[in-house]
Amino acid sequence: MARILTLTLNPALDLTVQLPQLEPGQVNRSDAMHTHAAGKGVNVAQVLADLGHQLTVSGFLGEDNQQAFETLFAKRGFTDAFIRVPGETRSNIKLAESDGRITDLNGPGPQVSAAAQHALLDRLDQIAPAHDAVVVAGSLPQGVSPQWLQALVLRLKNLGLNVALDTSGDALAAALKAGPWLIKPNTQELAEVLGGEVISVLAQAEAASRLHAQGIEHVVISHGAEGVNWFSVGSALHATPPKVSVASTVGAGDALLAGMLHGLLSADTPEQTLRTATAIAAMAVTRIGFGIDDAAYLAQLEQGVRVRPLTEQ
Amino acid sequence: MARILTLTLNPALDLTVQLPQLEPGQVNRSDAMHTHAAGKGVNVAQVLADLGHQLTVSGFLGEDNQQAFETLFAKRGFTDAFIRVPGETRSNIKLAESDGRITDLNGPGPQVSAAAQHALLDRLDQIAPAHDAVVVAGSLPQGVSPQWLQALVLRLKNLGLNVALDTSGDALAAALKAGPWLIKPNTQELAEVLGGEVISVLAQAEAASRLHAQGIEHVVISHGAEGVNWFSVGSALHATPPKVSVASTVGAGDALLAGMLHGLLSADTPEQTLRTATAIAAMAVTRIGFGIDDAAYLAQLEQGVRVRPLTEQ
Repeated sequence: MARILTLTLNPALDLTVQLPQLEPGQVNRSDAMHTHAAGKGVNVAQVLADLGHQLTVSGFLGEDNQQAFETLFAKRGFTDAFIRVPGETRSNIKLAESDGRITDLNGPGPQVSAAAQHALLDRLDQIAPAHDAVVVAGSLPQGVSPQWLQALVLRLKNLGLNVALDTSGDALAAALKAGPWLIKPNTQELAEVLGGEVISVLAQAEAASRLHAQGIEHVVISHGAEGVNWFSVGSALHATPPKVSVASTVGAGDALLAGMLHGLLSADTPEQTLRTATAIAAMAVTRIGFGIDDAAYLAQLEQGVRVRPLTEQ
Repeated sequence: MARILTLTLNPALDLTVQLPQLEPGQVNRSDAMHTHAAGKGVNVAQVLADLGHQLTVSGFLGEDNQQAFETLFAKRGFTDAFIRVPGETRSNIKLAESDGRITDLNGPGPQVSAAAQHALLDRLDQIAPAHDAVVVAGSLPQGVSPQWLQALVLRLKNLGLNVALDTSGDALAAALKAGPWLIKPNTQELAEVLGGEVISVLAQAEAASRLHAQGIEHVVISHGAEGVNWFSVGSALHATPPKVSVASTVGAGDALLAGMLHGLLSADTPEQTLRTATAIAAMAVTRIGFGIDDAAYLAQLEQGVRVRPLTEQ
């Protein structure tokens, strides 16, 4: 069991609204509404908790609608190290019509002041060193710059921590310069920050090699149902997941990241690490929500994962 | 200052989502999202608090999303006597596009068990007698029958309380049989339970006379910008509000009810009671949200209210 800290700088309250048909301009009656505390670092924490690890969760949380988060943290036994900021954590509303059409309404979230950013750094200085690894995941809230994220990753590294990073765009580009321990972009996110296509294995290997030179030890590149490529210094593996029926791809990347961290911190073999992580991600797409609720099914999925060295074709 | 208990059996969390244009099936970005604790009895309580009264609020509240309610109650100094029920209080989402179009998404709310209904009755037996009046306002949640509401009103009456009732449809029809002290239907709600049109003053007077015979002392019939007719035994008054620019008519009825209660409990003259109540309702339509935030403007609106006996034409 490892002690893991996950940082979610821009969490979200997911509100799913089920209704027969959306009629704009009218009064629509919803059959069901459900609210879930979410955000990449929170999702990762839930999977890691199911894998037996001890979690601390941190980041910025709007003080006006924190109940769903506090309830989740208490239920899962997470240590709550979130800095509270004035206002409401953003809501991401998903209108799900009976024909399967989804309309997303994504809120802006709170403005995070310089004082709150300082408060988080102070908190991390105190608590982070007691952990075996840190996950920094998700987008940046209003008021937080990519440069601040870069400094944050560097600060965590200087505290002696392994930093796993999962973000995109300008935030990813900036934070890469700090040389995190592990990154987990999908092919599109990687292309955005490196420029050009990185679909071919050769292009990915070249990109990974440059990232290794920057001090990034593990480059995990996900490509949906086509599988995962994992480039570490001196080793390159590919995993293909078994075919599963898709309930929701939301959270699959978070599950993959949690699985990778689990294997690396448990000193599993690379082959076993990637196999389990790929199975956890495959299981996630068969579920709405986060976490590992069926160990037998996970074991079955693991058997269906194909792992091979990337030198083979 | 009076001690007033308001009951909201089916409160709502109002979530206003502002966005440029709603594009169904797409990812929409919202400029602003705001959550408000609402429900007729809660709204009435806010206006009454601004008028200087001491409030207890009760009803059923979903335990999974109560933070906005608890924050409001603490901020307004309300005594919180809500019974918590499993699940989420319904959310009423309002999508407000920049062209003014509004799309409503109204949630189903929690199922209220027989045990929770018993718990509320027990609580009311203990706390209600310490109050000068009770307001029972709004719709019924899933699991609560119109007959239960009727029994509730009777029980409160038997505790010696004046019961002001504001509901509609089957709930209103059933609760009328218990003979509440005051009702405040609009013309449409009254027509629904009595059958036929009650737009003419004569029809309203006849309806009121029948309701008086059932023990209902005050029949307050609102008709939007056209004004209010108030029939009590031996007196009938009409009030016309001044013209105001409309921000939102949501909560205008709640403001009227609060204003009527205020006048009646303060032993104001009938003319003054109706004048103030009509001005408070007029002020409410100029505002988003609930409460009296500008005493000078209210005084000005009062001057613009015309009150006359209904025998005059």
